[in-house]
Amino acid sequence: MEPQGFRYRQVEKQIMALIDAEAIRPGDKLPSLRKLSSQLGVSIATVSQAYLELEKKGVLASRERSGFFLAPRALQMPAPASRPRPAMVPTVGTRSHLIQQVLEALGNKQLLPFGVACPAEELLPAKTLARLLNSSLRNNPARALDYAPVAGDPELRQQIALRSLEAGISVTPAEILITSGAMEGLSIALRALTKPGDNVLIQSPSYFCFLQLLENCGLRAIEIPSSTSGIDPRDVQRAIERFQISAAILVPNFNNPDGSLTGDAKKGEIVALLAAHKVPLVEDDVYGELYFGEQHPGSCKSFDNSADVIYCSSFSKTIAPGFRVGWMIPGRHYAKALELKTTTNICTAAPTQMAIAAFLRDGYFERHLRRLRSAIHNQMEALLLSLHRHFPAETRASFPDGGASVWVELPTGIDAVDLFFRAREMGIGLAPGAIFSTQEKYDNFIRLSCTGIWNQAMEEGIERLGALVRQMN
Amino acid sequence: MEPQGFRYRQVEKQIMALIDAEAIRPGDKLPSLRKLSSQLGVSIATVSQAYLELEKKGVLASRERSGFFLAPRALQMPAPASRPRPAMVPTVGTRSHLIQQVLEALGNKQLLPFGVACPAEELLPAKTLARLLNSSLRNNPARALDYAPVAGDPELRQQIALRSLEAGISVTPAEILITSGAMEGLSIALRALTKPGDNVLIQSPSYFCFLQLLENCGLRAIEIPSSTSGIDPRDVQRAIERFQISAAILVPNFNNPDGSLTGDAKKGEIVALLAAHKVPLVEDDVYGELYFGEQHPGSCKSFDNSADVIYCSSFSKTIAPGFRVGWMIPGRHYAKALELKTTTNICTAAPTQMAIAAFLRDGYFERHLRRLRSAIHNQMEALLLSLHRHFPAETRASFPDGGASVWVELPTGIDAVDLFFRAREMGIGLAPGAIFSTQEKYDNFIRLSCTGIWNQAMEEGIERLGALVRQMN
Repeated sequence: MEPQGFRYRQVEKQIMALIDAEAIRPGDKLPSLRKLSSQLGVSIATVSQAYLELEKKGVLASRERSGFFLAPRALQMPAPASRPRPAMVPTVGTRSHLIQQVLEALGNKQLLPFGVACPAEELLPAKTLARLLNSSLRNNPARALDYAPVAGDPELRQQIALRSLEAGISVTPAEILITSGAMEGLSIALRALTKPGDNVLIQSPSYFCFLQLLENCGLRAIEIPSSTSGIDPRDVQRAIERFQISAAILVPNFNNPDGSLTGDAKKGEIVALLAAHKVPLVEDDVYGELYFGEQHPGSCKSFDNSADVIYCSSFSKTIAPGFRVGWMIPGRHYAKALELKTTTNICTAAPTQMAIAAFLRDGYFERHLRRLRSAIHNQMEALLLSLHRHFPAETRASFPDGGASVWVELPTGIDAVDLFFRAREMGIGLAPGAIFSTQEKYDNFIRLSCTGIWNQAMEEGIERLGALVRQMN
Repeated sequence: MEPQGFRYRQVEKQIMALIDAEAIRPGDKLPSLRKLSSQLGVSIATVSQAYLELEKKGVLASRERSGFFLAPRALQMPAPASRPRPAMVPTVGTRSHLIQQVLEALGNKQLLPFGVACPAEELLPAKTLARLLNSSLRNNPARALDYAPVAGDPELRQQIALRSLEAGISVTPAEILITSGAMEGLSIALRALTKPGDNVLIQSPSYFCFLQLLENCGLRAIEIPSSTSGIDPRDVQRAIERFQISAAILVPNFNNPDGSLTGDAKKGEIVALLAAHKVPLVEDDVYGELYFGEQHPGSCKSFDNSADVIYCSSFSKTIAPGFRVGWMIPGRHYAKALELKTTTNICTAAPTQMAIAAFLRDGYFERHLRRLRSAIHNQMEALLLSLHRHFPAETRASFPDGGASVWVELPTGIDAVDLFFRAREMGIGLAPGAIFSTQEKYDNFIRLSCTGIWNQAMEEGIERLGALVRQMN
């Protein structure tokens, strides 16, 4: 971690705000290091680092002995605004076959990783985890080899209880149930709360595995919009007044794919509305730790007075997706969830639980998260700049305050499923918008992930993808 | 592994057969080492080892300079025969609350481990696994940290395909789907094959998690008897003629809890019968590798011509339950199973899959299994001898040809649930018969496991348990 980590970041943001407000225009010279340093009350080194970072991302250009200039085109891409509202009717069905093909492409390491929604392995703590796995097995073979308790490793639950305070959740280890990733928590939650034929409230767009899960459970989706400012409580109200709804699955923090953040005040309103209508809420918070701001966003669970919010999260986006360690806080549905966990797979693997417990206990997590958030934030800015350089001018993209992906609206008429297959041929991974809804609302959208360190191959990949989009336009 | 491993074992069996046939009676002197060695055509060392093993188990006693005698009471416990036939009617419901309490007790390391149905950790290869886990993460961090393919680690599927030949199953890696233990495979299989309200054929008694699974899926159980000679194809026929059945879950090899083995010819008949009525079969073979005889028992899957048998197994009873690595061969239900695996938890943990693949690839598995089978066989004999010494004479017990537990019928009138709670107070784990059926058929049965190295504490535990049973009688 750079010593002045957060300060240069703030300076970067202040400069970006000036660019946004068009106070600086392409070609303009930026203030000298000395001048900006005294204006902002930070060191010259901090300003210098901010300038250098912005230069790396292509926002600024430097000319010898003349200082920094705003590069000809900068980060100025409008957010997807024209997105159509989903029809508020119960809908079934996903594009299962397409989803399987997307999933296979996501697993294909030969493709540029714009399809994958979790951090690249060079950002993950492989050596520390190898050591912790090894020592878990050597120091405590009984605990690592035998079945873990159905509810999960006690030390891991302890560590998660401590960590939950970050999301405003006060919980005891006994209220936590370890799952093999957050997806398992969602699957258990839905099976605990619904029966086939029931309606479930979801955001639109939503993570495609939610839609598959609903289909596999015989459930119908009621889709409400997920705008740049997250979920609107009025949409929730309209939906629960109009339909008999058995549960809601929402992602208030950095919804996949659009990255939208539902503010904490709105979270409180939504929880109160759902509670008044006795609709249990399943909250998926897998991206909550990947915030770019100063503060951990809150959670719906923290507003839960009736123990009717089932909170689900995991370490898949932060420590290691392949470890399959997540957790749920099922509130008053705990006993049912525990029984369903038993018949799902008895318990989650013990060694990976122990290694992650040790990772948290020994203080690696917070340091690792600081690095990871900064890397993903940088990567996202680099991706957006690259899109700006290479994609048609009508392209719109979200610039979320966290998460790991950007939601891109291509010019109308471009078929993103077609683009997915053509891009795959060219060695480029991406997720087509069609799989994120049961309705045909996102046919010209794609999700692009920012999960690795930006490099020349990625820059060229976006350039080729942009050329393809122009050609299809 | 002892060099003459199998030979002394055979001699042991020959002696046991003589005892069974009452050709040797309590107090009788056994033939001298030299005499038996020439009679059987084996070395004196082999006979000597067989005598010493039988002495360790309490079957024989030795007197200085006078050789070996048959100990006063030997392994002569009749198998449970009086067990009532289950009523052949669709039944729902388990004793969920009781099962949760049993599961908690099974996880309690303070209790003597007669409740646990998987090998004690001193029989498991902790150090080798620690090394393989560590090297998997160090040599191939990308594969260990990232999501595994939904279908599972390719090398592990390759190794399992090779290994499947042992159970008579010829399969390619692409037909295998890795699951987090066999339970997950069963859960996926049932969700693929049935809808709530359907009937499912099971053995009686059956593993209690099957019953919980049926209940959680809203299914009804049709129970057919699991006798000492396994499943009778005529019972299968009667059931499918009488009821509309959506699937069968059977454990042909060493059914948990009674250890019964359904012979390979019967397996073929059952598969043909089910296929003729288009009833898919879910075959659970988790105990198949724990055979005590010379030969791996076959599988129903090997008779499957219509790809309608879903074979499920795991490494939980052989390598490490806590690793949660199992697999399924879903036949023509592959695509549906893969989709359900995705929405269950995306994939199984990668590092544990890789460690187990390496364990198989590097040739550890076969050697380890030889040791393990021998240890569990010894332990089972020791347990049966101990039961014989300490339990009332009316007690009956199964002596299966494999598996890891003994099914004990206590004198009529003894409430095994009551016994479970009283034994737990005394620090002794066991599983009460009531949880192995949806009907009240096994109220005076208990399952006792033989998963560790026999020791004085276990001997004393069985003695105290026997005293408790006598007191309750």
